[in-house]
Amino acid sequence: MTASLAQLTDCVRTELAAVDQLFAEELKSALPCVNTLVKHVSRFRGKMLRPYLVLLTGKACGSLARAHEVIATVVEMVHMATLVHDDVLDDAELRRKGATINHLRGNEAAVLLGDYLISHSYHLCSSLDSQYGSRLIGRTTNEVCEGELLQIANRNNFDLDEETYLEIIKRKTAVLCAACCVLGAHYAGADEIRTKRMETFGLSLGIAFQIQDDILDLVGDVDTVGKSLGSDIEKGKMTLPMIHFLRTAPAEHQALLRSLLASKEPDKVEQIRNLILPSNSIAYAKSRAAQLVDRALSSIADLPENDAVRALSLMARYVIARPM
Amino acid sequence: MTASLAQLTDCVRTELAAVDQLFAEELKSALPCVNTLVKHVSRFRGKMLRPYLVLLTGKACGSLARAHEVIATVVEMVHMATLVHDDVLDDAELRRKGATINHLRGNEAAVLLGDYLISHSYHLCSSLDSQYGSRLIGRTTNEVCEGELLQIANRNNFDLDEETYLEIIKRKTAVLCAACCVLGAHYAGADEIRTKRMETFGLSLGIAFQIQDDILDLVGDVDTVGKSLGSDIEKGKMTLPMIHFLRTAPAEHQALLRSLLASKEPDKVEQIRNLILPSNSIAYAKSRAAQLVDRALSSIADLPENDAVRALSLMARYVIARPM
Repeated sequence: MTASLAQLTDCVRTELAAVDQLFAEELKSALPCVNTLVKHVSRFRGKMLRPYLVLLTGKACGSLARAHEVIATVVEMVHMATLVHDDVLDDAELRRKGATINHLRGNEAAVLLGDYLISHSYHLCSSLDSQYGSRLIGRTTNEVCEGELLQIANRNNFDLDEETYLEIIKRKTAVLCAACCVLGAHYAGADEIRTKRMETFGLSLGIAFQIQDDILDLVGDVDTVGKSLGSDIEKGKMTLPMIHFLRTAPAEHQALLRSLLASKEPDKVEQIRNLILPSNSIAYAKSRAAQLVDRALSSIADLPENDAVRALSLMARYVIARPM
Repeated sequence: MTASLAQLTDCVRTELAAVDQLFAEELKSALPCVNTLVKHVSRFRGKMLRPYLVLLTGKACGSLARAHEVIATVVEMVHMATLVHDDVLDDAELRRKGATINHLRGNEAAVLLGDYLISHSYHLCSSLDSQYGSRLIGRTTNEVCEGELLQIANRNNFDLDEETYLEIIKRKTAVLCAACCVLGAHYAGADEIRTKRMETFGLSLGIAFQIQDDILDLVGDVDTVGKSLGSDIEKGKMTLPMIHFLRTAPAEHQALLRSLLASKEPDKVEQIRNLILPSNSIAYAKSRAAQLVDRALSSIADLPENDAVRALSLMARYVIARPM
């Protein structure tokens, strides 16, 4: 594996450019005030993980069609909508090293901009010939909302168990990645077995991605990661390292973590970080993510090798190798 | 016209019951925390204006099918979603004489519950055979978001003109009513001309409805109307009576209104109400709404008479006759 991800994804460069164009066209409004607000969204545009999943899966399973570009645009819009609404929820002040919409323009604009994005994603999706994509996207966003609702229902629940944690991140993050792969495979004409395996790939990759994201939120470096860190703790969200710590650390360390989590001390994030870092709880969370990446990799192991398959494989590995 | 609206709408009673059931089924979750939150939504359930528009239009133009029940449920969910998100926006403390979701459970739960509703509405809509409904609902919600965004872009713009005001309320309220009528007609097999006329009916009725709502917000009685009043003024939203007043009242009265609008006096709503009531600006707004109701009525005048047509006609009249 010497080729870089950028070289490997070159096989879907044309389609990715089409996604960019479709994204802009779909969101263009006759109202200047809407276009001004939409411009802020471009600041959120990140690594295009979800469009890549659609396009690379399609290319890995067969040929790309116009539907792949449409779906790739749809999933990116859905993802942007969740980011915009997450910022309302989290009151985050940093996102992709830029000011968030709600910080710049108020919560109202952020709620409405998120609604605008989600509405356009469904609108665009329903331009496809069949309801297959719309129905799956609808089912997926249902689950994403459930994951977010389950998450806030467990806010400040320091007894959250690993199973429920995994249920939350599966819904809020992984099902959309799985949908990307299912739709990528479907529109490339993949059979049911192949589509199911691609779903496993997306789901496993998505869960691993979120575990890694949560690890970074706890012990990452703000300049490298590029968004507010420690926000899980600030918002009373239990993540895997903390859950593991409260299950395995010496009793007095567990008690200390609990009291820190419940406290309002200004440097609690720093204190929690210093408490957990010397334990093996970060390593445990990493090993769980690594297992999931292995599962993702084995579900694409029987695909005939090409750049798209190699890129998917590299992406899966990269998910847990992101810089701290 | 002696029969009451309740008697006339009896012709769609069975289908309305099916809508209620479909609404509950679609929103049911495997997660108890989601079901608890969804229960709050039932407190928002109001007059079912939009489902009635779908079902009565269908019955007025032909026969009702399963698609009508699906669409009627979809539009009610879309409407509920806008109410839930409006409450985040407006920070309203009263809605339908009950506590709002955001007041009870925080802004986050309200944002997510609205998202859950909108997601399920698209999910349900994409269970229909063709993309026609999904595409039109998507286009409609695009416009609803634009209307809301145009509204907040004009917050505290005391120079808002009547044309822009009408553009806002057309998008944020009337296009959904128009979509109800278009889809009701479409799934009853109506031809293009009839469908277009039903669109005019829904659009005119919707604009009239919003003008009347805005009049009630200014001069209605809180116990009769059953929600927070004066919220338009509190939120810097210019409505038709105020726009007319600032165009036609004596200069010193105009100046007084402007200074009141810009002030933070605790009784400003009361003062503005007392300033505008003796003018003819309320009557002007009412006459504009009445013109639109006439337009709605004339667009259904050539339909063969039956209870559904009579009910639509009565609903159009009722829109501007709601108690103050």
